[in-house]
Amino acid sequence: MVYYHVIYDMSTKQIQIKELEKLNKLLRYWILDMTTIAGSGHPTSSLSAVELMSTLMYSGVFRFDVKEVDNANNDRLIFSKGHASPLFYSLWAGAGAIPVADLNIFRKFDSNLEGHPTMRFPFTEAATGSLGQGLSVGVGMAMAQKKLDKTNARTYVLLGDSEMAEGQVWEAMNLASYYELGNLVAVVDVNRLGQRGETMLGHDVAKYAERARAFGWRTVVVDGHNVDELMRVYTDMIGSHKKPLMVIAKTYKGKGISFLEDKYSWHGKTLSKQEFLEATIELGDIDFDVRGEISKPGTNVEMHSEKDIVETRLIASIQGNDNGEYATRDAYGNTLVEMMQDDEKIVVLDAEVSNSTRSEAVKDFYPERFFEMFIAEQNMVSVAVGLSRRGYKPFVSTFAAFMTRAHDQIRMAGLSESNITFVGSHAGVSIGEDGGSQMGLADISMFRAIFGSAVLYPSDVVSASKLLKLVSGASDISYIRTTREKTITLYNDDEKFVIGGSKVLRSSKKDVAVVIAAGITVHEALKAYEILQMKDINIRVIDLYSIKPIDTEILLESIGNIEQIIVVEDHYVEGGIGESVESALIDICPVISHLAVRKMPRSGTPEELLQYVKINYSAIVDEVYKLNNKKEKYDR
Amino acid sequence: MVYYHVIYDMSTKQIQIKELEKLNKLLRYWILDMTTIAGSGHPTSSLSAVELMSTLMYSGVFRFDVKEVDNANNDRLIFSKGHASPLFYSLWAGAGAIPVADLNIFRKFDSNLEGHPTMRFPFTEAATGSLGQGLSVGVGMAMAQKKLDKTNARTYVLLGDSEMAEGQVWEAMNLASYYELGNLVAVVDVNRLGQRGETMLGHDVAKYAERARAFGWRTVVVDGHNVDELMRVYTDMIGSHKKPLMVIAKTYKGKGISFLEDKYSWHGKTLSKQEFLEATIELGDIDFDVRGEISKPGTNVEMHSEKDIVETRLIASIQGNDNGEYATRDAYGNTLVEMMQDDEKIVVLDAEVSNSTRSEAVKDFYPERFFEMFIAEQNMVSVAVGLSRRGYKPFVSTFAAFMTRAHDQIRMAGLSESNITFVGSHAGVSIGEDGGSQMGLADISMFRAIFGSAVLYPSDVVSASKLLKLVSGASDISYIRTTREKTITLYNDDEKFVIGGSKVLRSSKKDVAVVIAAGITVHEALKAYEILQMKDINIRVIDLYSIKPIDTEILLESIGNIEQIIVVEDHYVEGGIGESVESALIDICPVISHLAVRKMPRSGTPEELLQYVKINYSAIVDEVYKLNNKKEKYDR
Repeated sequence: MVYYHVIYDMSTKQIQIKELEKLNKLLRYWILDMTTIAGSGHPTSSLSAVELMSTLMYSGVFRFDVKEVDNANNDRLIFSKGHASPLFYSLWAGAGAIPVADLNIFRKFDSNLEGHPTMRFPFTEAATGSLGQGLSVGVGMAMAQKKLDKTNARTYVLLGDSEMAEGQVWEAMNLASYYELGNLVAVVDVNRLGQRGETMLGHDVAKYAERARAFGWRTVVVDGHNVDELMRVYTDMIGSHKKPLMVIAKTYKGKGISFLEDKYSWHGKTLSKQEFLEATIELGDIDFDVRGEISKPGTNVEMHSEKDIVETRLIASIQGNDNGEYATRDAYGNTLVEMMQDDEKIVVLDAEVSNSTRSEAVKDFYPERFFEMFIAEQNMVSVAVGLSRRGYKPFVSTFAAFMTRAHDQIRMAGLSESNITFVGSHAGVSIGEDGGSQMGLADISMFRAIFGSAVLYPSDVVSASKLLKLVSGASDISYIRTTREKTITLYNDDEKFVIGGSKVLRSSKKDVAVVIAAGITVHEALKAYEILQMKDINIRVIDLYSIKPIDTEILLESIGNIEQIIVVEDHYVEGGIGESVESALIDICPVISHLAVRKMPRSGTPEELLQYVKINYSAIVDEVYKLNNKKEKYDR
Repeated sequence: MVYYHVIYDMSTKQIQIKELEKLNKLLRYWILDMTTIAGSGHPTSSLSAVELMSTLMYSGVFRFDVKEVDNANNDRLIFSKGHASPLFYSLWAGAGAIPVADLNIFRKFDSNLEGHPTMRFPFTEAATGSLGQGLSVGVGMAMAQKKLDKTNARTYVLLGDSEMAEGQVWEAMNLASYYELGNLVAVVDVNRLGQRGETMLGHDVAKYAERARAFGWRTVVVDGHNVDELMRVYTDMIGSHKKPLMVIAKTYKGKGISFLEDKYSWHGKTLSKQEFLEATIELGDIDFDVRGEISKPGTNVEMHSEKDIVETRLIASIQGNDNGEYATRDAYGNTLVEMMQDDEKIVVLDAEVSNSTRSEAVKDFYPERFFEMFIAEQNMVSVAVGLSRRGYKPFVSTFAAFMTRAHDQIRMAGLSESNITFVGSHAGVSIGEDGGSQMGLADISMFRAIFGSAVLYPSDVVSASKLLKLVSGASDISYIRTTREKTITLYNDDEKFVIGGSKVLRSSKKDVAVVIAAGITVHEALKAYEILQMKDINIRVIDLYSIKPIDTEILLESIGNIEQIIVVEDHYVEGGIGESVESALIDICPVISHLAVRKMPRSGTPEELLQYVKINYSAIVDEVYKLNNKKEKYDR
């Protein structure tokens, strides 16, 4: 095995092109080979970016320690065009970081090389595949490197030209120039062809450059297949700058294989065995032993870490009204300040409403860890993914209603196994006069349907503060719903809360019904209790502050043998608290059993996946056996 | 009452400034008066745009027949910055289109003048209030005017500078220049101040202009408070052009009142009685009788209407596999062609995946009614809102997974009472190798939680085709979930389907369980049936093709007295088919009753709204009474 470190000769401005071209040929072979074996995938979208990425990775420009993925001095590489995964995996194989044999199980059920990069592959920075999100993730990582870790590390993002139509890309560009992320480099693979035809701008690379410059970026237009030119650009233009750099590369989809190159209707299509043979013949002699070496990152740069000392403000200092009532949103800012004192990994992002969500409270104490994201929720969420993947704990806030703006990004955050706490204020109709457009009425439904999420809904400042502290430890997507209205305080400071838990607030032996409420409706339930008391009717009142997960045992215990349950929520019926309770209490209503997707999805054949998540015929057969107390199991 | 039609003298390039300035003073008075009475709202954000909008509306530039709102020759005016509703309502009062007295019930529970414009106000083109969507709605309306109605009408959109950070705005600008919408005029109110402080670009109007030009727009920078200058711009630059126009106006938030003008922390804040008095003193003498006249639209322009004649392709012509199996997505394009022949209001939008969703089939037959929206789902949905509000029936398609990208826009489409059919393909884990990022697993949950939506999930080509035809009549948000995999055909062409319905596919007296499935899992249920048959175990199989609404009676009848129900779905547990069924069958599990938001939200006090949607204490009390068979009702 011959490892080439493709060296750039500053004096002659030449690199050892020959070696790199051998490597590029091998990369092309692997891309075609693995997709032909898999029978699916995106070979042509990978072929157009071979030179763009190999020149970056094997020339000493990209610095990464494959033995120490989490080294803060590592550069980061994100494939925003996740469908170019064959190239992505081949690059790491080409660096000897993964066995070449792994490429042959691309897209197979048990392989870590999925159709689009996921966290199951060791060198994936964040799951991609929903286009137009990678640059935002890169912004988050570049922010972590420059503003928090204070290293000289850089972040590189490969974008497709089709995804430049996604507004989120321009949100990211806007913010990157605002925060002067000179350590961020975007490489746009302008191969002209989208999935179904030509892109909006085709090969008009000048137009891309004009737009990027208008958004405050440095730009350079290159021939994306000219290794020498790419080398000059990477070496001359990447350095310490205030402005981020966009490399706009004119390329050809399917480059290198005549019958694929710049041809329509080859998107996401693989070669037949015969076509594969023709392609390999066209590639000519291939050196299977050639490899590229990735430079190690600098070690001289020490990670920045200093503990700021501030006075903790107490919840008591929250502004209440004359009746001593407080809004749960008010607990947010104050509790953050308290938590940030003990955990320097906590960072706060807000979409230009910090005075409403109350996250503004942290600005006075930790200005360096508060990031104003302006009114661009999609970018905010993907930036949080980038920060989270780099070891920070983002707390992300805006109105509950506007969290829906970033549903797809939150979905991908879940697939990226990020640790992010979302705080949605102004939830429900109880915000009043501002009207429907400002009311979060589907936020619980949305966050419940995010893989591995926790959904919490405090009813007073004490529980709000305690729940915030609880989730910061949790290692997945958490959502906390806060209320704009001021309400009375229900709990003492020593009250204990657990994720999954609930509280019985009123209870007696004579209870005729159980009212399950959360947040604002807990207070309505308590008013109802008082009124019914006067009629000598007793009800039990439960504060279901943990909507997902629900600890069914605790809940059933609280309900006891009472026959009537009333769920009341400030949210639409669909996917809300009521349906969450109905799912949880299915045991006391044992006629319904429910087979659905309860595992994180992955690549595989349709049959394998239906079986894996247990929604296929055999799972149904087994369920029927079970319900009819049959011992046997269906043997596939 | 004196109606001034502010006339522009082409020769002298002068307008009757004096009259317009009287009007502007009155508008400012109304804005302050109505918000002070309401005690909430956004006066300062309204004051900055007074000249921008009054000059447009009362100068003869804006053409609109207040007696005939739906006249296709009318220009359209959209307040993307919906929080400037005090100005919006005042402008129509200033034109004599609504009684001035209405302004006094701004934001009251029963008023049509809600906090942000909704369809309850007769001159609202589309509900706004979630920022960054109005320009896309305007693109849809400008497309309707230019490409479909073929009128000379124009669309005007007022944008705030804060919302320029939303990527969707740039998606809209991108598409507007691509489709050469010279009849679209964006007016950006650059008042420098957002909610919590200065915007990203502050008063750097040149930067906005540079970006807009890079996106293919004509731009002009103006003093937004100089009526004469505005008049020149509107008259000289609006005409027949290929490029859309962006008027970038430097303005001051709170303009006209010294203690509000360009001041921080006045966003969304109203004046005290005392401050209101000071403000009116500063305004000086006000002529309460002055009004402006809106020009009538041209009537010479006839609406374009011709019926194309094409051969209808039959479902039989769909490409099946050797076993005669078809994918439900394949029914989509073919059925559209069939429907478009009979209904010329149907238009088709797709986000660059028409070859996957199969909407591409219509391109050959109705190229003028197919709009390629490229990879920009947010813009696509809001454009569909614009088209729908102008009387068209958009069918909007992309992967089910990527529908989540536009959750907030779909939410606002519901509040805009639009008639849009969404078709999401590649649903569920059954798409296989592409992996989790491409799998729609929360789409049912999302669409169920859209106000007034219908959610349908066909299991074969026949039902897919029939359900498409069913929803096109429905006047709200419909979602149809299609499958990538080819499956057998279950129904004959004469089978009847209804929204809310379900089908019993297998049934006998000996059934031990009911399996409720939809889409792909119906086929799994049928396989399970066969296997169990061999063991002499009978199950009933129900195809629940209508997930929302569910006709509970039909379903209960189909279930009969069978004690075990198994729901199986290719979707996450949360908010999916199972929870939909659990909600529907709550009657056979009568322990749970569920109070939640079942009405479209609106403006009002928190108390009024909790009562209106019946989730407050009195609703709980009444529910307890009901459950305990008490006659009495709680009297508030």
